Amino acid sequence: MSSTLGSIPTTQRAAQIREFGKPLVVDSNLPVPSPESLAPGECLVKMECAGVCQSDLHARNGDWTLKPKLPLICGHEGVGRVVAIGKDTYQAECAVRLGDRVGIKWMARACLRCEWCRKGDEACCPSRKVHGFGINGTFAEYTVTYIDYVTPIPAEVSSEEAVPILCAGLTVYKGLKQCNVHIGDWIAIPGAGGGLGHLAVQYAVNMGLRVIAIDAGDAKRDFCLSLGAEHFIDFRESIDLVQDVIEATDGGPHAALVTAGGSFPYEQALVYLRPSGTLVAVGQGSDDAIKAPFALLVGKRLKIVGSALGTRQDAIEALDLVARGKVVTQYTTRPLEDVDSVFEDLAAGKVTGRVVLQF
Amino acid sequence: MSSTLGSIPTTQRAAQIREFGKPLVVDSNLPVPSPESLAPGECLVKMECAGVCQSDLHARNGDWTLKPKLPLICGHEGVGRVVAIGKDTYQAECAVRLGDRVGIKWMARACLRCEWCRKGDEACCPSRKVHGFGINGTFAEYTVTYIDYVTPIPAEVSSEEAVPILCAGLTVYKGLKQCNVHIGDWIAIPGAGGGLGHLAVQYAVNMGLRVIAIDAGDAKRDFCLSLGAEHFIDFRESIDLVQDVIEATDGGPHAALVTAGGSFPYEQALVYLRPSGTLVAVGQGSDDAIKAPFALLVGKRLKIVGSALGTRQDAIEALDLVARGKVVTQYTTRPLEDVDSVFEDLAAGKVTGRVVLQF
Amino acid sequence: MSSTLGSIPTTQRAAQIREFGKPLVVDSNLPVPSPESLAPGECLVKMECAGVCQSDLHARNGDWTLKPKLPLICGHEGVGRVVAIGKDTYQAECAVRLGDRVGIKWMARACLRCEWCRKGDEACCPSRKVHGFGINGTFAEYTVTYIDYVTPIPAEVSSEEAVPILCAGLTVYKGLKQCNVHIGDWIAIPGAGGGLGHLAVQYAVNMGLRVIAIDAGDAKRDFCLSLGAEHFIDFRESIDLVQDVIEATDGGPHAALVTAGGSFPYEQALVYLRPSGTLVAVGQGSDDAIKAPFALLVGKRLKIVGSALGTRQDAIEALDLVARGKVVTQYTTRPLEDVDSVFEDLAAGKVTGRVVLQF
Amino acid sequence: MSSTLGSIPTTQRAAQIREFGKPLVVDSNLPVPSPESLAPGECLVKMECAGVCQSDLHARNGDWTLKPKLPLICGHEGVGRVVAIGKDTYQAECAVRLGDRVGIKWMARACLRCEWCRKGDEACCPSRKVHGFGINGTFAEYTVTYIDYVTPIPAEVSSEEAVPILCAGLTVYKGLKQCNVHIGDWIAIPGAGGGLGHLAVQYAVNMGLRVIAIDAGDAKRDFCLSLGAEHFIDFRESIDLVQDVIEATDGGPHAALVTAGGSFPYEQALVYLRPSGTLVAVGQGSDDAIKAPFALLVGKRLKIVGSALGTRQDAIEALDLVARGKVVTQYTTRPLEDVDSVFEDLAAGKVTGRVVLQF
Repeated sequence: MSSTLGSIPTTQRAAQIREFGKPLVVDSNLPVPSPESLAPGECLVKMECAGVCQSDLHARNGDWTLKPKLPLICGHEGVGRVVAIGKDTYQAECAVRLGDRVGIKWMARACLRCEWCRKGDEACCPSRKVHGFGINGTFAEYTVTYIDYVTPIPAEVSSEEAVPILCAGLTVYKGLKQCNVHIGDWIAIPGAGGGLGHLAVQYAVNMGLRVIAIDAGDAKRDFCLSLGAEHFIDFRESIDLVQDVIEATDGGPHAALVTAGGSFPYEQALVYLRPSGTLVAVGQGSDDAIKAPFALLVGKRLKIVGSALGTRQDAIEALDLVARGKVVTQYTTRPLEDVDSVFEDLAAGKVTGRVVLQF
Repeated sequence: MSSTLGSIPTTQRAAQIREFGKPLVVDSNLPVPSPESLAPGECLVKMECAGVCQSDLHARNGDWTLKPKLPLICGHEGVGRVVAIGKDTYQAECAVRLGDRVGIKWMARACLRCEWCRKGDEACCPSRKVHGFGINGTFAEYTVTYIDYVTPIPAEVSSEEAVPILCAGLTVYKGLKQCNVHIGDWIAIPGAGGGLGHLAVQYAVNMGLRVIAIDAGDAKRDFCLSLGAEHFIDFRESIDLVQDVIEATDGGPHAALVTAGGSFPYEQALVYLRPSGTLVAVGQGSDDAIKAPFALLVGKRLKIVGSALGTRQDAIEALDLVARGKVVTQYTTRPLEDVDSVFEDLAAGKVTGRVVLQF
Repeated sequence: MSSTLGSIPTTQRAAQIREFGKPLVVDSNLPVPSPESLAPGECLVKMECAGVCQSDLHARNGDWTLKPKLPLICGHEGVGRVVAIGKDTYQAECAVRLGDRVGIKWMARACLRCEWCRKGDEACCPSRKVHGFGINGTFAEYTVTYIDYVTPIPAEVSSEEAVPILCAGLTVYKGLKQCNVHIGDWIAIPGAGGGLGHLAVQYAVNMGLRVIAIDAGDAKRDFCLSLGAEHFIDFRESIDLVQDVIEATDGGPHAALVTAGGSFPYEQALVYLRPSGTLVAVGQGSDDAIKAPFALLVGKRLKIVGSALGTRQDAIEALDLVARGKVVTQYTTRPLEDVDSVFEDLAAGKVTGRVVLQF
Repeated sequence: MSSTLGSIPTTQRAAQIREFGKPLVVDSNLPVPSPESLAPGECLVKMECAGVCQSDLHARNGDWTLKPKLPLICGHEGVGRVVAIGKDTYQAECAVRLGDRVGIKWMARACLRCEWCRKGDEACCPSRKVHGFGINGTFAEYTVTYIDYVTPIPAEVSSEEAVPILCAGLTVYKGLKQCNVHIGDWIAIPGAGGGLGHLAVQYAVNMGLRVIAIDAGDAKRDFCLSLGAEHFIDFRESIDLVQDVIEATDGGPHAALVTAGGSFPYEQALVYLRPSGTLVAVGQGSDDAIKAPFALLVGKRLKIVGSALGTRQDAIEALDLVARGKVVTQYTTRPLEDVDSVFEDLAAGKVTGRVVLQF
């Protein structure tokens, strides 16, 4: 028999994609999967909050070639408490237990058996399942997910604080790990004042890196410098950004972590990077491409690394730095019902930090 | 319901440890675990053969501080076919299927969830289970093990050939991966003509390493050279082994892979290693210690690496080289009933290569 | 006083670039730098032979934005004997001595002091000097170069055999070291039958890699397979090269080493690479760029590595494999006077292997 | 001709070892090497200050098997200004210039040519020269050293502040780089309040490591915690230090950096280290040895790394962190004449931080 915690209702409120390009439908009458229906390894999480990400908007709009099956509960990051675990689930000593507060990420599960999982590249697992895309997501009072893949939330971190780490924070933390840098090296972070950028600045500073932040406006300048960036280049005011970056970093940064959607900031990074430097590309979702001229790529012996998501270990490490007060997340809270107006703000570029939906 | 292949008998023949220090008892009337009793993730393997290892003898004799519960089916390496899988077992695209031929290793399972598993150090998993020690082993017609942890046997490899790789081969292959060497570097392999050594020589040669084999006698000399070693030092004939190794390798090998039980060959390696070299220590089971003088360890900036077992990925890689004809295993076959006389030969140092028990 | 070996004439024969786009001028009356004129650290090498490379043709034609000062002795790879060493030259225990046979490479010197040299990235040294471009080259009876940067030629390797390693061999050997692969991994080598490719195949095989060779024609097929490639794809015959590569390598190679001038084979590699794979780009000299779509780069978590040249250590290792008979170079010899007809053949794509000029 | 800066006297004051075990002789009438006598690559440094290290005492006492030739100017760390450079010295773009303030380290030169130098292991260079041991040292108004090996002192760092970094700081910084750790990992530092330890704590904190400091007394406790250590274990008060360390680090630290002379703290570290952890051994000078039991080394898959000195790059990085205010050195100043009373204090264990001699 599955083990359960407290009484679990049979219906719930959740926000579904029912038609691409249309507002989500918040329905209060959706069924809650019954604990008995859980397979071994599955668990039911009573959600406390969920984050809204650009990718959710893409999923809702059917922007990608591969489209999810509808109807689908949207959302891929969130925090809640495990209230049921599928019967006969194997639980190692270190396993998550009933009642634990856990984070749900874009990747709901990796198989942990394939070539990539065996080598530690879980994000490449061909059997991976994705919340809010392949399976139901986090904009719901109850979400089914996988006990081996959820991330324990440290007691010191509130559920709302944790949300931005489970996707944005994890992404940039993983990207930083692939930058081929070490203490004292320079890293450029375009979009440093944004949702991913402000976390990247903090993680980079904690790794002992020297950060040159690139963004626009005095508010972002002050924000980035307060997070520990040594320099700030305002791309709206800089007459020669490449030259400014090179000068500020005494010959160009050793790495650049770029999270933008379009190709321009990537190609610019190839120009200002120090010889032998690394560009980590985190951006996704567009049909675009990065043009890497031989004269730069080979001439300067650069490396370009495509990075996305992160492993279970990366998520634990990224959260640990929040638990110890080293990294602070920026977010605002809104009720679940506001999800579509949040999408509008997101599309209009009006969102600063993460919006966290509460139930 | 569990899935099963063919009809599974209710009794079987297996060799049990019933009393420490006494011969194993080969009993033809032991129960076969029923497919229905298998938990999700467990599987039943119809064994074709099993290898006999020094560690089995230690287990039988109760040599270690930690002692297994008796009675216990002995043995920790073997090959067979999956004939039943526990009901509700999760199977990824890449998973092992009913009817697949698989290898069983010392480690029956790692949790795949703990800090070490998440970082790729499965062998350090505190929840690991061990065949022939913590749970029943491979000296049996049927063995219960874990579907995610067995190793698929490539079609090109016979079950008997595979057996020595699943323990001895895996151990040295993993050790070589931790030697901090690359193509063209020298590696010393004491005991190169032995059960672990002859596999180490072959793996090393395939990695592009230059091998200096250390062992005794003309038969072992010829054997090692035929496997691709460039030099052979006969430790019974060498008047100054350290000097001979240094001269043959133009300044000392970059690494040494030592599998011995006692400490002497380890301490000798610290002397002949090239400055900045690495000693990988694979030996276990004794109460002994390696004495590493500061004058060598710090003076020559050496590294000493403790290595044991290997991951699922290591096992797949180690077998792949056998499948492609790059590594050849040395073994002789005996019926299960001979297991105690094999132990006697092992204790007397009379065994060359692996003895594989057939059922 | 400088030390010298034998008598050194005052005039020599050498092939100079005197006007871009025009044939080289072979002049028998050029001065030999006098031993007394050598600065500390410089040495004079009496050349035995020199290789002709596509880059020499580019230099002669003034194809690159940066143009050398004329007149200039062409050529950047060659082998000869040290016949004079500048006075007061520091010579460590391991130093090259008067009379040693040495190889001259594209890089005549790196400063060994700057950030890149200190970190082992000699090829990025901003103070580097280049034979046949920044300073006089190897198409001469006597060449001035730097005692700390020449590569000792092992006794087992003839001067002519060594020549192709000093540039082509070094380039691909270094590229292979940056492929993030290990024993048993698949690597694709487009142009496998060519001057760089045939060496890449052999080095890769010696590293324990599995090679899929891509080239055209039965002669190249036979050649590549004879060198140890496991598969050969004829790009003229393959209807779907990407699919053929993926199938032959059971899911795509773990790396691709591409040496072509144009961008097509690089972009094709991004498609057939296995998720998490690495593309090493060695090609130079064109104004072209590689287009890396986000959907591949980030979607498959690929790495792209720009590689060129190699270090002194790389050169020693690359030659050592020739000395031990593991890698065989393909070359034809011609007298120095034929250099311009060799250039014509090179421009017409008529050259197989390396042409080595003899003096 | 050599280039010189200002006028250079012909005699100087310096402290020589004239007889082992006897006080140094401070002689005001020792010759200053003339600029003309400098070989290419050599330079003359007008010293501003020099640090006193335990190794100087060993040298003076002739404690090591290998003994220096006497008389010898003692001292191996110091800061001064380059006042002369040997004629015909090669100077790359990045080279140190006349008038630059530079640091002198234990290693006066590495050949930059041998196998170890080519691979970045300068400290293993068999041609290395050592100040205050193989050649004259830093307890002098003028010291001859090698232009390519001195370390530029950043303008933000006073000469006195720099001194402890050039030996103690470099040693621990290098050791930390070899700990196989990354951000968020735990490291144990025995002797954390001492001359090497207090620098190790600061470097570790800057790398994002979590530090457990081990030392004795409340003053050291306060000091270590003020430097960023998260825990302090007082080895005089702890009843079970191993258990205390394991508990404080939730399972044992991932690494331990041990700088002690005797073997005990090393062997203790093997017990408290987390499985798969690394012990970096920095201590030298004794005839002692570390006993590494198989049960720990292999049973826990530990690594032991012998570390000493560091490269030119390491020294630059270590100083850069001081220049940016991230690491603060602890020292007291004394006049050169006091050198022998400093030795007495050192021998009596009365010195806290580094004593810096001023001229």
